[in-house]
Formats: sequence, C-alpha cells, structure tokens
Amino acid sequence: MMLSQKTKINILKSPTKEDWIEQAINNLDTILLDHSHCERKAASVALNLMFRYSSNAMLVRKLTAITKEELEHFEQVNQWLYKKNIPLGPLSSPPYGAKLKSTIRTKEPQRLLDSLLIAALIEGRSHERLGLLGTHCPDQELAKFYRSLMASEARHYGIYWVLADTYFEREIVQKRLEELSIIESEILATLHPEPRIHS
Amino acid sequence: MMLSQKTKINILKSPTKEDWIEQAINNLDTILLDHSHCERKAASVALNLMFRYSSNAMLVRKLTAITKEELEHFEQVNQWLYKKNIPLGPLSSPPYGAKLKSTIRTKEPQRLLDSLLIAALIEGRSHERLGLLGTHCPDQELAKFYRSLMASEARHYGIYWVLADTYFEREIVQKRLEELSIIESEILATLHPEPRIHS
Ligand SMILES: [Fe+2]
Ligand SMILES: [Fe+2]
Ligand SMILES: [Fe+2]
Ligand SMILES: [Fe+2]
Repeated sequence: MMLSQKTKINILKSPTKEDWIEQAINNLDTILLDHSHCERKAASVALNLMFRYSSNAMLVRKLTAITKEELEHFEQVNQWLYKKNIPLGPLSSPPYGAKLKSTIRTKEPQRLLDSLLIAALIEGRSHERLGLLGTHCPDQELAKFYRSLMASEARHYGIYWVLADTYFEREIVQKRLEELSIIESEILATLHPEPRIHS
Repeated sequence: MMLSQKTKINILKSPTKEDWIEQAINNLDTILLDHSHCERKAASVALNLMFRYSSNAMLVRKLTAITKEELEHFEQVNQWLYKKNIPLGPLSSPPYGAKLKSTIRTKEPQRLLDSLLIAALIEGRSHERLGLLGTHCPDQELAKFYRSLMASEARHYGIYWVLADTYFEREIVQKRLEELSIIESEILATLHPEPRIHS
C-alpha cells in the first residue's frame, strides 16, 4: 500500500478535468488559503476518528501519526501564506466534504468503515490535485512544494485503506469503496464556482 | 512567562489535597488511562481553538505547536499503557472539564478570553498534579516520566496566558482569571469518587 509519488490512485473513478486546473491556476492565492484549511481539517478528521475508536490500538497509533503530519503540512502551507502576504482567515468550504460526510452510515461498524473509506478517498483526491498543481503551477518554487506533499497524501490514502482492510473483510471493503468512489467523482463532476482544492 | 519545572503556578487558588494523592497512588493504572485521555483532549482543545480563531496568526502558530506536543505526550502515555498491559479504552470523564467549560461566556470576545483562561487553568492544574505524581509515585521510572511532562504543562499554561494577555487588556485578564481560578478550585474541593487526573 505504500504508494510512490508516481503511483496513480486507481480508486478515483474520474480524473480531475481541465476546468478545475484552469480555475485553480487563475486563483492560486485562494487555493493556498483553502489548502491551509484542508490540512487543518485533515488533522481534525484523524484526531476525531482516533477519539471515537480509542480502543483500537493500531488505529490510534496510525492516526496519531497522520494528525501530526497534517499539522506539519498546515504549518508549511501557512508559511507560504505568510510569504505571499495572504492573511490566514476563514473561507467557505465547497460542498465536497459535507456531501461525502452525509454518505457515512450512522450504525457501527458501518460508520467506521465508511469514515475510513471517505478519508481514504479525500486523501486520494488531494494527492491527485496537489500533483496537478505540482505540474501546472507557474510559480516553480510553489510547484515544487506541491510535489513535496504528494507522497504523504498517497501514504495517508494507503493507511486509511489498510485500516479498513484490517477491521473489515476485503470483499466488503472493496464493494463499499467502489460505491463511495462513484459518489466522490459525481460530486466533483460539476465544477464548484468558487476555487477550492476540492471544487 | 516561561515557568521552570520548579515554579509554582500561583494562580491555583487551592493546592491539591492529600486525599487526591492517596486516591491516585492507589489507582495508578486508572490514572494512567485517564492521563492518556487528558493528553488527547488537550490536543483537541488546542486544535479546536485554532479552528475557531484562524485569523489570529500568533494564536494559530502557538496552538499548532501545543497540539503537536500534546500528541507527543499522548503517544508517550500510550507507551506506558502498553508496557503495563493496560488496554487503551473509553473511561468516563470527571465533571471537572464540563463544569469549567460551562463558565465560558457565549459572546465574543468574552468567549475567546474565557476559553484561553480555562485552558490555562487546566494546564496549570495538570502541571501541579503531574508534579505530585512525580513526587509520590512509588514506581520510580513512572515518577520520572511524570516529572518529565511537568515543564511542558507549565509552558502551555504560560502560552495560554500570553495569548490572553495579547488579545485583551491586562486588567481584564487578571480580573477574569481571578474569578475562574476560584471556580476551578471549588470544583476540585470535593474529591470525585472515581480516580482521575482531575478528580
Ligand atoms: Fe496533508
Ligand atoms: Fe493527508
Ligand atoms: Fe500534555
Ligand atoms: Fe499541556
């Protein structure tokens, strides 16, 4: 499951289209601010999961590590904001996260499975989009920064997948991941008008 | 504000009494499990504050650092649980946290001030109690571990205080801290029957 920087995450049903790249490149400052919020939210997702399932030692150990890494990313993105004189401040979220969250079934153990797979999909999509920024961003130093984050997000994808695979039957994981990945791609099929990492 | 390991945090109105120490020493395993939850909660408090006030760059920077340190503590305590064969699992919280939280005023900017001061008081009390465990714990290695955490908790106390002092008038901070510290000591005046770090 350790995906290298070049690995394509095959679970994403539809690759990101040209219109997102164009929107992002034309709004790099907003994308950077939204990215800061994404890293913060990623830390929060991992921390909350680890709270809810604190009896699962392996899950707690791996999610503590993810939380710390996301906080590192958060700090790194904030350094870029500082450098570019973009004030850290609130920014409305695109519907992506809330829509994905609404697919999480409320009963256990389905809730755990869905939470892990949604987190995996978000990490997978982040990996893909940071990669696109790493290729298309005209600021070469910033492009390099995006590329430097890609490997972590792919690794996070892998960790969430492995956790799902640890606590659930492989067949059940694959079936549900297939369903959720279709939904994930559908949410992104129409570009959200406001430029975001997950618009 | 950088408090050394030996500094007494004068803001605590009443020092912890003998009965808590006795209860804790007689229930070291439960105290260790509760301590793990405390570090997790401390990380969560810092992360949530930093979410709510993400426009305040200094607050975000300092609370990101605290979150990371609390996660380190969380991992260290979990290693002790593992070593002592105590399974990580849920444990009911004492009324301390909820009672303190209920004193936070809902309107801004009072909400920010109260949140910072409550966090400061909890860190201050943790500093004091970890110090008591560091002195009275019969397991010398564990006692040493408790002493190693004391300095961080005092530093965290200092950071929350400095943040309050940055965003509010010194006089207002001192007046409110005085009020809240009286409440904090009152909550702990009667020993909670279940052994906890804040029982
Ligand atoms: Fe990240
Ligand atoms: Fe990630
Ligand atoms: Fe701590
Ligand atoms: Fe602390």
